[in-house]
Amino acid sequence: MDVLKVQASAKTYPVYVEENLRHHVSRFLPSEYTAILIITDEHVSNCYLEDVKQGLSDHRVYTHIIPAGEKAKSIDIFYEIHTKAITCGLDRQSLIIALGGGVVGDAAGFAAATFMRGVGFIQMPTTILAHDSSVGGKVAINHEQGKNLIGSFYPPDAVIYDIQTLHTLSKQEVRSGYAELVKEALLADANFFQELMSQRLSSLTNRQLAEHLTKGIRIKSTIVEQDERESSVRKFLNLGHTLGHALEAMLGYGKWTHGELVGIGLLFAMRVSEKEYATVLPFEKLYTWLKDNGYPLKLPVLDPHDILAKMKLDKKAFNAAVQMVLLKDAGQPEMAEVSDAELLDFLESFLEELAQDYH
Amino acid sequence: MDVLKVQASAKTYPVYVEENLRHHVSRFLPSEYTAILIITDEHVSNCYLEDVKQGLSDHRVYTHIIPAGEKAKSIDIFYEIHTKAITCGLDRQSLIIALGGGVVGDAAGFAAATFMRGVGFIQMPTTILAHDSSVGGKVAINHEQGKNLIGSFYPPDAVIYDIQTLHTLSKQEVRSGYAELVKEALLADANFFQELMSQRLSSLTNRQLAEHLTKGIRIKSTIVEQDERESSVRKFLNLGHTLGHALEAMLGYGKWTHGELVGIGLLFAMRVSEKEYATVLPFEKLYTWLKDNGYPLKLPVLDPHDILAKMKLDKKAFNAAVQMVLLKDAGQPEMAEVSDAELLDFLESFLEELAQDYH
Ligand SMILES: NC(=O)c1ccc[n+]([C@@H]2O[C@H](COP(=O)([O-])OP(=O)(O)OC[C@H]3O[C@@H](n4cnc5c(N)ncnc54)[C@H](O)[C@@H]3O)[C@@H](O)[C@H]2O)c1
Ligand SMILES: NC(=O)c1ccc[n+]([C@@H]2O[C@H](COP(=O)([O-])OP(=O)(O)OC[C@H]3O[C@@H](n4cnc5c(N)ncnc54)[C@H](O)[C@@H]3O)[C@@H](O)[C@H]2O)c1
Ligand SMILES: [Zn+2]
Ligand SMILES: [Zn+2]
Repeated sequence: MDVLKVQASAKTYPVYVEENLRHHVSRFLPSEYTAILIITDEHVSNCYLEDVKQGLSDHRVYTHIIPAGEKAKSIDIFYEIHTKAITCGLDRQSLIIALGGGVVGDAAGFAAATFMRGVGFIQMPTTILAHDSSVGGKVAINHEQGKNLIGSFYPPDAVIYDIQTLHTLSKQEVRSGYAELVKEALLADANFFQELMSQRLSSLTNRQLAEHLTKGIRIKSTIVEQDERESSVRKFLNLGHTLGHALEAMLGYGKWTHGELVGIGLLFAMRVSEKEYATVLPFEKLYTWLKDNGYPLKLPVLDPHDILAKMKLDKKAFNAAVQMVLLKDAGQPEMAEVSDAELLDFLESFLEELAQDYH
Repeated sequence: MDVLKVQASAKTYPVYVEENLRHHVSRFLPSEYTAILIITDEHVSNCYLEDVKQGLSDHRVYTHIIPAGEKAKSIDIFYEIHTKAITCGLDRQSLIIALGGGVVGDAAGFAAATFMRGVGFIQMPTTILAHDSSVGGKVAINHEQGKNLIGSFYPPDAVIYDIQTLHTLSKQEVRSGYAELVKEALLADANFFQELMSQRLSSLTNRQLAEHLTKGIRIKSTIVEQDERESSVRKFLNLGHTLGHALEAMLGYGKWTHGELVGIGLLFAMRVSEKEYATVLPFEKLYTWLKDNGYPLKLPVLDPHDILAKMKLDKKAFNAAVQMVLLKDAGQPEMAEVSDAELLDFLESFLEELAQDYH
């Protein structure tokens, strides 16, 4: 197995991507731990918790199950994890394992970052999207007034990615995760983008999953290594998210997944880029791939002014122009300021284009 | 003004110790901040909040007042600070100032460490004890089941210590803070210890305060610079705290201050050290100084077995022997394991000695 290494400012950690790792977690523990607390959610626990526990039977292991879905990233669940850690007698040399998607990783990670001012932490992602959330060190919970507002930078000791677990994901969740892979490909690797565009999501093999996830993680970690605190290039990872986040806020969380709306956001970022740079991007190719793979591309009727307002709310830039990540070409991202008037224009014609579906 | 520099693993920050700094905080800000949120408590706000605000009138400044006392280090107050930060529109380039004692520093510091994964943070200590809590980067809130269990390492951008503010402290709080200074002196500087022993706490001048606090901070920061994460020498800072914490837990928080009980703990650590190392330490000198300065040295009747149980609970070492910081001599601390039987013995004779008051 190829072992990726990610270099954070505080430490370097390994990322293992391979099938059936969940049975042998003991082998991949980077240090000795006095006790282990596995945090997972109600869906993932049914499928994989026993496997992980068995692979750790040589340790003192506790488990804690949190609700599935975004609502688990709350202050109450955070406090509950701490209560559990105390009750189990965890100490500074103990380990918290996050077994699950981005929600479990973010919530358990923030608890690990703060229990006794920081204990051992290992990410075991079980969604495709979590290739993104498990690497880069961002952990957080939500405030009622906004996502991810309470958190830390806390890189894990290791990431153990058992891709076998990904086969129980719903189609929606597969689409959600793959949109982020497409985003990463567009940011840094035109060949990888072509490769993804020739992939049907309904027939992914473990080899393909491993290859795509490894490439995605490598792109993400290269960016994060240059700019952990998001003062420069890390912002590129928001490609497709200006519109994506606005749509998420307007359409309500739940019906569409994050990645599905990022898919639409990527199309929009391409159209804006084409106009700003007078260039041609593989818009048609991405559009067709999204459609063929079941991404919902039909939006309800939306007012561009409302979308613009959400974009500004998201970036807390009410008076300033919106900053977007654009592409001069596949693999060449750039931050650009887009004026309100231009954005309204772009949004109008883009929404029309989606509605017509004349591709 | 002598400016101390403290070197944390993530950054180096200045510590300003001087009278009347609170009027000129703007001068000491190490960077540009988009907005400032001052957190203070209901006592401190009455005396000093206006002064600080006026000295920052060239900035966008908000204030938030939390209850005075340990109860403010709760998850609810923590969340409330976040709500306030959001409502005020703070962003990643904003600053949180902790204006107050260790409680405000710890609670506001943990909020600063976690708001948007970390914003600017400045400590403005207003108690003597807070010379200790404001330096070293530990921030935390309490869990119902234990003190400081939820927190981070988050060094401030600067410490601005206006010693003029210390004159409104109650006698109890002065004693509380000076016990930690005595502890630091005993750990590292026998001359400083002598100096303190010749000081009456009722007649402290600003020059004396500045000198003592600067020496204390220098000792603490030297230790912390060697061992930020408390894996070795930082443990020495627990001198006097093995018994101190146990007494705090047994006598209830409130009547005695933390430092007053640490004073008794220091006496105990000296007696144990004398016996373990067959040496003589300045026990009488410290005892007399504590007494002359109004430290309560009469304890209610306590069972040594109960004290021992609390010591073990505090260190979560039910089966292992208690680890104590002892002194081979003033300025020569050492970690030592003391068996249960020995400790019971030592406790018994020590409690008797205090009860007799034959000094
Ligand atoms: N920290 C970061 O850098 C970062 C980056 C991107 C996203 N995120 C966060 O990640 C979260 C979204 O992550 P997500 O999409 O993985 O969501 P998720 O964790 O909610 O998982 C999606 C759903 O799939 C289920 N599931 C997980 N693994 C499964 C499996 N193997 N088989 C069957 N079902 C499974 C979950 O129970 C859940 O219902 C958001 O909260 C987002 O803010 C964080
Ligand atoms: N982070 C660390 O490294 C560290 C180290 C030691 C202690 N601590 C923490 O510090 C806390 C204790 O700190 P503390 O003793 O400063 O307590 P505190 O903050 O509660 O202050 C004590 C009392 O004095 C009042 N006060 C503060 N400044 C005043 C002033 N200038 N004039 C008049 N009244 C004033 C306060 O309102 C309070 O009632 C504890 O929670 C402890 O855990 C932290
Ligand atoms: Zn995303
Ligand atoms: Zn103390």
